[in-house]
Amino acid sequence: MTDLITLGQRAQEAAGQLAVSPAVQRNAALSAIADALEQQAEQIISANRDDLAAGRSNGLSQALLDRLRLDQERISGIAASVREVIGLADPLGRVLETIVRPNGLKIEKVSVPIGVIGVIYEARPNVTADSAALCLKSGNAVILRGGKEAIRSNKAIAAAMREAVAGVGLPEDCICLVEDTGRESANQMMRLNGYIDLLIPRGGRGLIQSVVANSTVPVIETGAGTCHTFVARSADLAMAEEIVNNAKTSRPSVCNACECLLIQRDVAPAFLPRLAARLSAHQVELRGDAEVCRLLPQAVPATEEDWGKEYNDYILAVHLVADVDEAIAFIRRYGTRHSECIVTADADEAQRFLDQVDAAAVYWNASTRFTDGGEFGLGAEIGISTQKLHARGPLGLRELTSTKYRVYGSGQVR
Amino acid sequence: MTDLITLGQRAQEAAGQLAVSPAVQRNAALSAIADALEQQAEQIISANRDDLAAGRSNGLSQALLDRLRLDQERISGIAASVREVIGLADPLGRVLETIVRPNGLKIEKVSVPIGVIGVIYEARPNVTADSAALCLKSGNAVILRGGKEAIRSNKAIAAAMREAVAGVGLPEDCICLVEDTGRESANQMMRLNGYIDLLIPRGGRGLIQSVVANSTVPVIETGAGTCHTFVARSADLAMAEEIVNNAKTSRPSVCNACECLLIQRDVAPAFLPRLAARLSAHQVELRGDAEVCRLLPQAVPATEEDWGKEYNDYILAVHLVADVDEAIAFIRRYGTRHSECIVTADADEAQRFLDQVDAAAVYWNASTRFTDGGEFGLGAEIGISTQKLHARGPLGLRELTSTKYRVYGSGQVR
Repeated sequence: MTDLITLGQRAQEAAGQLAVSPAVQRNAALSAIADALEQQAEQIISANRDDLAAGRSNGLSQALLDRLRLDQERISGIAASVREVIGLADPLGRVLETIVRPNGLKIEKVSVPIGVIGVIYEARPNVTADSAALCLKSGNAVILRGGKEAIRSNKAIAAAMREAVAGVGLPEDCICLVEDTGRESANQMMRLNGYIDLLIPRGGRGLIQSVVANSTVPVIETGAGTCHTFVARSADLAMAEEIVNNAKTSRPSVCNACECLLIQRDVAPAFLPRLAARLSAHQVELRGDAEVCRLLPQAVPATEEDWGKEYNDYILAVHLVADVDEAIAFIRRYGTRHSECIVTADADEAQRFLDQVDAAAVYWNASTRFTDGGEFGLGAEIGISTQKLHARGPLGLRELTSTKYRVYGSGQVR
Repeated sequence: MTDLITLGQRAQEAAGQLAVSPAVQRNAALSAIADALEQQAEQIISANRDDLAAGRSNGLSQALLDRLRLDQERISGIAASVREVIGLADPLGRVLETIVRPNGLKIEKVSVPIGVIGVIYEARPNVTADSAALCLKSGNAVILRGGKEAIRSNKAIAAAMREAVAGVGLPEDCICLVEDTGRESANQMMRLNGYIDLLIPRGGRGLIQSVVANSTVPVIETGAGTCHTFVARSADLAMAEEIVNNAKTSRPSVCNACECLLIQRDVAPAFLPRLAARLSAHQVELRGDAEVCRLLPQAVPATEEDWGKEYNDYILAVHLVADVDEAIAFIRRYGTRHSECIVTADADEAQRFLDQVDAAAVYWNASTRFTDGGEFGLGAEIGISTQKLHARGPLGLRELTSTKYRVYGSGQVR
């Protein structure tokens, strides 16, 4: 069994040095990491081949094997993502607030690293490099704990990264990999208070729920998204068609895809048939309540289980509502507070929706698919937070920082 | 047993209404609460008398009985604190950032309430009103769970507050009290995910550790503080004496009091005797390592247990170090990341300390006693966070908010 306390101590020690390193050194480390991944592509691909072989004999699905697979092109893609992080603004040392008190105390609130970030994830080895790059740029040491399916690939990637980091004079323990992929190592990480300052689970709902339920270390809950689009009576129906089509079909497997369409009752007869025709290009299955099925013979009757369901597939639940208030109430009941959209030409109605719907991102006349660090102009992201503490929505570099008050005095006492 | 899920649902429902209430209505509620507490002072004091009687027969210490006691003056003080919150700036609806993307999307990041905040606390009934006032002002419903010693007082205070809130047209369930003070009700609160968005423990270290260890709801850890003051060779010794005296003796029971003094070795012979003389006015017990005891015959030999210890009393641990780096290393090892201070005339040395010491507040030439929402100019606080997630240092109104992205489009798709 891995001695996680020792690993935690090493990461913490490294974090102390990393926290005070200049941006130029952290960027040099990122550049060295990208180079090393490309230079050691052969070893990484060879390790990955062993993972794939083991996966096949363990009966992994074709979809999982595809996520696991690394080739020259994918490694170049990973290296390119790491290089993109170099160009992002340094999130550290920003003076967020300056307060001068009547007694002369000058108080500065500055951004500092969080410290040691733990990442628990599943089978995709690109997460190993992505997460390490974002943590390094933001001055945090990282403890990576990927799934057993990718362990050989992850070891090869971590070894390349650690060597690169050491090459620019930073401690290699800025990037630590938990090599024991048994369940117990994940459980230990979740209770490594004092060594890990923040735990981020990246993966499916099962993984995230398990981390939230079992962790005593602070967690940021990411990922699960049952997003709704509400088409109001006054909507431009051509626009609504484009938005729903994009939100449902551009990438159904992701958390910002639309899972449920709400339509104001009186506009449903005009809108539903044209939308169904449009979505038929992707063979989207529509699941509707009784009214929807009357308007659309091809729709499948929905059950209570369909409301609030994250399909991650070419399936769309459809429900009719009387007005914006009913739409808001439905979303309050079934939404996951990720991304919600109203399509309407009525500005007052839109503002009501924007104000009253409680979600990380609320859209007026745009696809929910935009909830993404890159699309928001925040740069790369380590996930999308659906909780309200610390950060909500895309977790970019700034969200990987904490703050500290620096207080300058001249002998003040209270 | 209290049905906490029902309570959670009621609080959540109330939070939805409170979140969209105008500031003027929330302020009217605060004003009504302050009035109600004064008008119902007699009932509250009578309930408190029953708590005190029960406490005496259960053998509560005199100190605890004193904390529990309410009289006309204390109730006026509580009402005055509530009225102070009215004057603070509304933390909701602040546009924190506006991003306009090349595709024309306008993205606003705005401050919104967290939702439902749970507060678990001990014997002081003033916490009931304080916490409710700060949560209400910041648009959050609150579920209060105080200690059994104060339950009669808390019920009377909560009843007055709920009536006042309803009187201005807000749901009375904006303020909920858990009347069952058994251990099980606290445990249930810690696992009320989906109903409680944030849990804040207010009390001693035992309470806080128990909440951190057992809660699956996000928690902000508050309170524990082992603060150090480092007196460097170049310090103005008169200033150092003032600062240490203030940090130790002005209120030893609080978390921002100084618990351990570090002195650069070569200045110890000059500084220690004058400091000891100054502190003798408060009969402060000095506990030192061997060197300190040689310089100061009256000092008590310190044991390993003294380093990192929160005395909350007229006791000060003293340790000599070679230089600022050793002081920083000592604080990294034994500090609780609350408040740390350097006294020096050397600006480079001070900057090194300010940058390298990892704590919520780091001071140069000022007493650690200033770590306080009021002293920082942030207004009233609900506690002092010693964790790095969400908020660090004094938790004022702003720290009781989350954010939401409002996205304005004109048909954009990705």
